[in-house]
Amino acid sequence: VVGHVETIDTREFELFDGVQEVVRVSEPYKLTSRTWKREKSVITARGVEIGGDTVVVMAGPCTIENEHQVFETARRVARSGARVLRGGAYKPRTSPYAFQGMGVDGLKILRAAGDEFNMATVSEVMEISQIEGMLPYVDILQVGARNMQNFNLLAALGQIRKPVLLKRGMSATIQEWLLAAEYIMAGGNYEVILCERGIRTFETMTRNTLDISAIPVLNKISHLPVIADPSHAVGRRDKVMPLARAIVAAGGDGLLIEVHHDPEKAVCDGPQSLYPDQFARLMDELKIIVPAVGRSI
Amino acid sequence: VVGHVETIDTREFELFDGVQEVVRVSEPYKLTSRTWKREKSVITARGVEIGGDTVVVMAGPCTIENEHQVFETARRVARSGARVLRGGAYKPRTSPYAFQGMGVDGLKILRAAGDEFNMATVSEVMEISQIEGMLPYVDILQVGARNMQNFNLLAALGQIRKPVLLKRGMSATIQEWLLAAEYIMAGGNYEVILCERGIRTFETMTRNTLDISAIPVLNKISHLPVIADPSHAVGRRDKVMPLARAIVAAGGDGLLIEVHHDPEKAVCDGPQSLYPDQFARLMDELKIIVPAVGRSI
Amino acid sequence: VVGHVETIDTREFELFDGVQEVVRVSEPYKLTSRTWKREKSVITARGVEIGGDTVVVMAGPCTIENEHQVFETARRVARSGARVLRGGAYKPRTSPYAFQGMGVDGLKILRAAGDEFNMATVSEVMEISQIEGMLPYVDILQVGARNMQNFNLLAALGQIRKPVLLKRGMSATIQEWLLAAEYIMAGGNYEVILCERGIRTFETMTRNTLDISAIPVLNKISHLPVIADPSHAVGRRDKVMPLARAIVAAGGDGLLIEVHHDPEKAVCDGPQSLYPDQFARLMDELKIIVPAVGRSI
Amino acid sequence: VVGHVETIDTREFELFDGVQEVVRVSEPYKLTSRTWKREKSVITARGVEIGGDTVVVMAGPCTIENEHQVFETARRVARSGARVLRGGAYKPRTSPYAFQGMGVDGLKILRAAGDEFNMATVSEVMEISQIEGMLPYVDILQVGARNMQNFNLLAALGQIRKPVLLKRGMSATIQEWLLAAEYIMAGGNYEVILCERGIRTFETMTRNTLDISAIPVLNKISHLPVIADPSHAVGRRDKVMPLARAIVAAGGDGLLIEVHHDPEKAVCDGPQSLYPDQFARLMDELKIIVPAVGRSI
Repeated sequence: VVGHVETIDTREFELFDGVQEVVRVSEPYKLTSRTWKREKSVITARGVEIGGDTVVVMAGPCTIENEHQVFETARRVARSGARVLRGGAYKPRTSPYAFQGMGVDGLKILRAAGDEFNMATVSEVMEISQIEGMLPYVDILQVGARNMQNFNLLAALGQIRKPVLLKRGMSATIQEWLLAAEYIMAGGNYEVILCERGIRTFETMTRNTLDISAIPVLNKISHLPVIADPSHAVGRRDKVMPLARAIVAAGGDGLLIEVHHDPEKAVCDGPQSLYPDQFARLMDELKIIVPAVGRSI
Repeated sequence: VVGHVETIDTREFELFDGVQEVVRVSEPYKLTSRTWKREKSVITARGVEIGGDTVVVMAGPCTIENEHQVFETARRVARSGARVLRGGAYKPRTSPYAFQGMGVDGLKILRAAGDEFNMATVSEVMEISQIEGMLPYVDILQVGARNMQNFNLLAALGQIRKPVLLKRGMSATIQEWLLAAEYIMAGGNYEVILCERGIRTFETMTRNTLDISAIPVLNKISHLPVIADPSHAVGRRDKVMPLARAIVAAGGDGLLIEVHHDPEKAVCDGPQSLYPDQFARLMDELKIIVPAVGRSI
Repeated sequence: VVGHVETIDTREFELFDGVQEVVRVSEPYKLTSRTWKREKSVITARGVEIGGDTVVVMAGPCTIENEHQVFETARRVARSGARVLRGGAYKPRTSPYAFQGMGVDGLKILRAAGDEFNMATVSEVMEISQIEGMLPYVDILQVGARNMQNFNLLAALGQIRKPVLLKRGMSATIQEWLLAAEYIMAGGNYEVILCERGIRTFETMTRNTLDISAIPVLNKISHLPVIADPSHAVGRRDKVMPLARAIVAAGGDGLLIEVHHDPEKAVCDGPQSLYPDQFARLMDELKIIVPAVGRSI
Repeated sequence: VVGHVETIDTREFELFDGVQEVVRVSEPYKLTSRTWKREKSVITARGVEIGGDTVVVMAGPCTIENEHQVFETARRVARSGARVLRGGAYKPRTSPYAFQGMGVDGLKILRAAGDEFNMATVSEVMEISQIEGMLPYVDILQVGARNMQNFNLLAALGQIRKPVLLKRGMSATIQEWLLAAEYIMAGGNYEVILCERGIRTFETMTRNTLDISAIPVLNKISHLPVIADPSHAVGRRDKVMPLARAIVAAGGDGLLIEVHHDPEKAVCDGPQSLYPDQFARLMDELKIIVPAVGRSI
């Protein structure tokens, strides 16, 4: 069967006797595809270009705790070369008994620190009702892995005109991930950054398995920028640096990394947060690597 | 280390030299556990008891399409012994270009058919803003697999006083699933029904892999009723009947099954919908099996 | 592309610009397929028919330890209706420091107990050099999950004329499993019994995830008998009985179950071995279920 | 419970009422561990040091086809800096109808080409009976992913005194992989090189998912050298180069890469074989990266 078959459910044919499998040749995503747009998309957030010649590093604490923490961390990562400041104000916690974040008060701190050190800001949105309140403070709205198929949230983000950083769901295929991006783009918001953050596999020695292959795969089939988050993928500080180097060497457009000025005191995810000195050393290593992929940092 | 350690992040210790793994012995969930409540919970929706001696079958179309479809299907499944009528009015679709559901108009049809054939109703809620409008028409609110860790939605469902059917996320561990139930219960709504619907594995011959072992595992550690959805797990009509029998034989408290009075014309998931005659035959087979697990149907 | 394309590596086409995926429609297995042989195969081992109207239960200890243990266990399971006696003489142990089995001395005990209680025998072969020595004592040679793609062993088993019980590899797709069976059949030995024993997934609350859906899938595409091993799938005694019932309800042709006359003293896998009384109760439950699938036991 | 508990099966305790999980703190492997040997092992094969300061690249065709092919490929990869020549003489093929390799005749060609271009040789052993015949021609014996838990083969390789390259099984945990290495070392052969080659996950856009995190994880807990094979992990030429760079950036001790002087004509795995020119370019990129990890190449 060749032709326009989008509305056909291929499984109907598989129920016939003698038929073992039916396959669909054309892909269901459009706006995210290189077929639709051949050249790589460059997305700009407060002057920072993501997807261009420069590898962009986004760094900062997992959770916004207080002004001192955010400013201290921002000062250190900015000095080492980070261009975007991360920090969570609304936290998706697996347990209802864990700290759920500072909300808008936290975002004000994030914005102030971003302004002070000339960085764009990125923070996670969990619910449609939060979007409006976040816009004044946040330059890139992050959709977490657990919400990658929260279709109402995606559709609502299609209505704004700010970059969205879309994390891959823990067990999302690359195709489902692109379709989630398609939800946002179908609403008219074309500023989507994809972020690989580890997938769920049988291996338990790391929190998740960073799917490093997703980077070259996406670079071939999609025009969207692709970054990766080594901190959540591996869950332990001593493994973050090797993976960060690997992501850049594999052609990633950027990194999202947790750094805390004092990880032992972190409210959440301290063990996966780099010390500022480690972050500085990592940036030095990345400077060595980027010419191998024709980039700067 | 033994004692009250909930606030400790065990990974801190793993970063020490010579330490390879740190394990947490006590479980983080409480209200969902048999330790907290030893006897099995029986949840009642419009007079139908789920978790009691009778295996409860919930059946109906994937999507509510029109009055004729819902009434025809309801008539047939009620006659065969189904006690709860299912039907989607808000549909989580992987592609933004697919049909998204009839909304409240669909729910009115569902309610009318439920009343006509003396069945309770179950339908999926995708967004906090939909809850209020669903309450008059729906006896059990279903949370889909993709929203299992939509924590804001779970917390909002903790505030109502109606049963919630919580589907397992595609790659959720049993522990994460119980913690998601814990979110609802922590708000004061203790009426949670767990629904296994297949997990994501490497096998591609079935849409998902029904984790049949989850049923006895949950029956040991949790007091909540556990049902399963063979239709979404396997994705093809000819495999639904064997799996439905297996679920009941493994000790499941009920089934959620897609039946359509005319599957070839179904708007969505036709290939996994049973014909009414198949459903009747399945019910006859289940009647043979239930005495082996000390139940009726 | 339609036609005879077996020798074409489809990935060649995927390297072209603009091509995203290439799919192969015809299946690579032949002798194992329903296309090649429409009617179900019935395999006979010392008078016991596997794949026929009767569900066949194979039971016995994980490891052969001594005469008393094997005879005591055999006596009990035979009385409850088991037709085949299992017991390992060569043990695949994950650690080199664990007990590796009694070898031929163990097989002699197994044979004697089989003769005494009128049962066929099944035992695992790990290495080509063991085959010859096993033939006098063993009616069904079992290939373990870890050796499912030990192609030299499979080819050697294609040269004998005794039934082979082929366990599914821990991460083998159904297609790879059929191709492993094809290796044996390509040598001329058509007596292959497939045995599902759990696949590896992210879930850690059970040792493996029993892929119950594999049973109806295989029943459609292959003529070979399909049994399942709930003991290794779940790894804990209290979950074995529910899964055993589920396997039979799903249409399995038989069961492979670990039973030990005194599980607390078992050399290996005691926690997943049923007590003889539990096994008797299970058989009673199965007697209730089998009419639902048109079988006897 | 703290103390010497190796012989205890922890599951026994889990069967008690009120107990949900039992965990084992001490690890079951010894000889492979950093606890047993703190400094990194350097393994020497015909003068090539693996695990030392220099990143070692092993390259060559998937299958040995003829003298021209092996010599042409060897000439090109040696010139670019490869130190070990790979080539399969015994091929593990998923289908019994595929080409199974040239055997000893192929190994003679491999040895001659290795001598001509001053390279060590590596080739896969599938069966105990092949070992003896391979020793004169092969400097490193490779165990394939499908044989990682072929315990008889591992034990036999423990009796020789030549390096063994042990590929990770498709669904083997890192711990099972180390235990497989332990089988070889327990026999007295301490020359084991670990090779990551992709694990099986739900993602289908790549053949396997390269578990890049395994490299830093192993570097912490084991003293054995760790290399990786990007060709089998991803299965497509255009993704091999980014992954090869990532492996070196993550701290891998070497690479195993398929290169063919004329991939279109390759008997097997042509689509994942690099052209010699691509390989030369890759080596140039790696030269840029290695200082970032304190290595040479």
